Amino acid sequence: MFKNLINEFPILNQKVNNQRLVYLDSGATTQKPNSVVSSLENYYNSINANPHRGAYCLSTAATEAFENSREKVKNFINANSSKEIIFTKGATEALNLVAYSYGMHCVNEDDEILVAISEHHSNLIPWQQVAKIKNAKLKFLYLNDNLEIDEEEYKSKINENTKILAIAHISNVTGAINPIKDLINYAHKFNTKVVVDAAQSIAHHKVDVTDLDADFLVFSGHKMFAPMGIGILYGKEELLESMPPFLYGGDMVEYVYEQETTFDELPHKFEGGTQNVEGAIGLSKAIDFINELGINNIEIYEKEIVDYATEKLENLGFLNLYRPKGNNHSSVLSFSVEGIHPHDLASILDSKSICVRSGNHCAQPLMRYLGINSTCRASFSIYNSKEDVDALIEALIYSRRLFGYGHE
Amino acid sequence: MFKNLINEFPILNQKVNNQRLVYLDSGATTQKPNSVVSSLENYYNSINANPHRGAYCLSTAATEAFENSREKVKNFINANSSKEIIFTKGATEALNLVAYSYGMHCVNEDDEILVAISEHHSNLIPWQQVAKIKNAKLKFLYLNDNLEIDEEEYKSKINENTKILAIAHISNVTGAINPIKDLINYAHKFNTKVVVDAAQSIAHHKVDVTDLDADFLVFSGHKMFAPMGIGILYGKEELLESMPPFLYGGDMVEYVYEQETTFDELPHKFEGGTQNVEGAIGLSKAIDFINELGINNIEIYEKEIVDYATEKLENLGFLNLYRPKGNNHSSVLSFSVEGIHPHDLASILDSKSICVRSGNHCAQPLMRYLGINSTCRASFSIYNSKEDVDALIEALIYSRRLFGYGHE
Repeated sequence: MFKNLINEFPILNQKVNNQRLVYLDSGATTQKPNSVVSSLENYYNSINANPHRGAYCLSTAATEAFENSREKVKNFINANSSKEIIFTKGATEALNLVAYSYGMHCVNEDDEILVAISEHHSNLIPWQQVAKIKNAKLKFLYLNDNLEIDEEEYKSKINENTKILAIAHISNVTGAINPIKDLINYAHKFNTKVVVDAAQSIAHHKVDVTDLDADFLVFSGHKMFAPMGIGILYGKEELLESMPPFLYGGDMVEYVYEQETTFDELPHKFEGGTQNVEGAIGLSKAIDFINELGINNIEIYEKEIVDYATEKLENLGFLNLYRPKGNNHSSVLSFSVEGIHPHDLASILDSKSICVRSGNHCAQPLMRYLGINSTCRASFSIYNSKEDVDALIEALIYSRRLFGYGHE
Repeated sequence: MFKNLINEFPILNQKVNNQRLVYLDSGATTQKPNSVVSSLENYYNSINANPHRGAYCLSTAATEAFENSREKVKNFINANSSKEIIFTKGATEALNLVAYSYGMHCVNEDDEILVAISEHHSNLIPWQQVAKIKNAKLKFLYLNDNLEIDEEEYKSKINENTKILAIAHISNVTGAINPIKDLINYAHKFNTKVVVDAAQSIAHHKVDVTDLDADFLVFSGHKMFAPMGIGILYGKEELLESMPPFLYGGDMVEYVYEQETTFDELPHKFEGGTQNVEGAIGLSKAIDFINELGINNIEIYEKEIVDYATEKLENLGFLNLYRPKGNNHSSVLSFSVEGIHPHDLASILDSKSICVRSGNHCAQPLMRYLGINSTCRASFSIYNSKEDVDALIEALIYSRRLFGYGHE
């Protein structure tokens, strides 16, 4: 379906050590299409200026481009209002903003904060801090044997004390798609606010905040074909209205006196300091790129590749795969090879110019829960092909031989 | 001296409304030279990857580029160790980091925090918050008739209760160069920690943190020819060591358990989440650009332009200039024209394709102190020329005529 797409990504057309580069780490960061990269140069060579601060041509153009990007993000995730779209430097800052601003002010002693054991550190440690400082309880949703959060588990953990449920849409380790719509629906019966980390879903599946009824939802641009240094916090308008600012500085104020300050309206209240116009424009181009392909087509295409990879990996016979069985799974495949440490394995794959991650994937509690230290992880995007999967399989067989294990 | 430099800045070579663009808002953000802009494309088309997280070729190259940038920043400001260089998204985040992490933990009830009345909101409002939450006192350094902070003033305000002095190296409104070396020296007699906002000096004068003995110093990349979305916090190692993290997430941890986390060493402790490698590389190229010109040459060149502008503006006779007399002044000129509101004036100048800022310049307390609401501000950089000044003067005369005032 996306056959010639690789030509849009010059980095993937280079040879490394005379071998074709096989990039299987899109879960960490995606590569960038020509349209996004060239938008950066276009911006700096035509309209670069500090937005919101100048009455002259460039500044007006930069402001317009920045605010158009906000509108595009709003439509992309189907928010009600562009006031609900806050630009941050990434998902991590966005989650910290919610923890510092909403968490520190709305969580009280003996309240409960609930997170999944599979959370990325960025959606866990900020809540540890809130729990510690506010004397609240941090509780966990654990996984069943199929690496999923089942109904019994979440119904036993969410109750009237649960102030916040912080959960990833998709696990960055197992690729499990969490039942966030059901979780949000159930949580709202107890007035629990739900913070969704959509970092691993935004470039792979339709994310509709209105349909989900999410209270907060965050993602990073760099995991969805946009430049580094830009991310999004979505929050329901009434919640954002009720929260104090997070970063204090220029452009987020109304009146500033020596001892007191009143703050600007949404979304500017949360956007202190010069905003990253370049990043916002790049994000806007990345959304165009996704929209032109069609998010549903992306989902179908990636599923085909990942199903193909799953079958091939399972057939190897010497590999543990950490993914849920069935269709409740996205574009991430974690695995380990018997007898080879994941770091060694990643290095051997690198010698074949195959890029996979190894380690704990910023999810140490999950690793401990699974009884392992680390895994290798191959994660896929629209520029990957079955040929990439074949290269991975061949290199895995080579790795086993290199370690003195027979095969076939 | 920098005659053909404008060719390095394609944005400045464009015509707007068939007129040459005269950019006089470098105090808000600088334009970017070709070497910086092309480094972004080069990065994304050759080594883009998530740093610190992968064992493969691209990730290793991205990590190396990122850490080389840190080393370059360290040398540029003459820090002792690259552990003292923390990447942020800009000066505003850096100041908030110091306020949240150092301020909230080291300022106690009845302690004093001292800031200048001329501070930018970004180096004022975070300290208002610390003072409010910690029941500390926020005090102010006021300016003398020459718009300077004199010795008598600071010696009467710094005492053994002063925990923090937060001060700009250079005012973004008056261009006054504050006596920060003397201030730091005097403050240290009382063990007062000094936070220097170098946003307006870093691209114009030599900034040497060791010579200054600054405790903390911050600046933004986008005001020194680098891309948007990157900035620096310098802090003395022993201070940074003593402080809790600010943004919690991936890449800044050692061990993460369900209820507890231990943190990584400096500088990573303060760099949660995927870092902006693109921005760091762009900042590195911007430092190369400054170093190739020579910061002393830049200072000499800009002084010549600004002195020329000052004389011409003073000779107009219908203009109030808000700058200190003498040499204690940098590349910012704020002014108002009798009978024309600064916003109207900026709009008229814009019709002549001359870009100046108008407003309170994120310094409302200073405006109130000066008894005005707003000014126009022309700020200069190495790509400006006397021709730009002449264009400004001509347009100011035109503006007065347009408002029905005679001239000459």
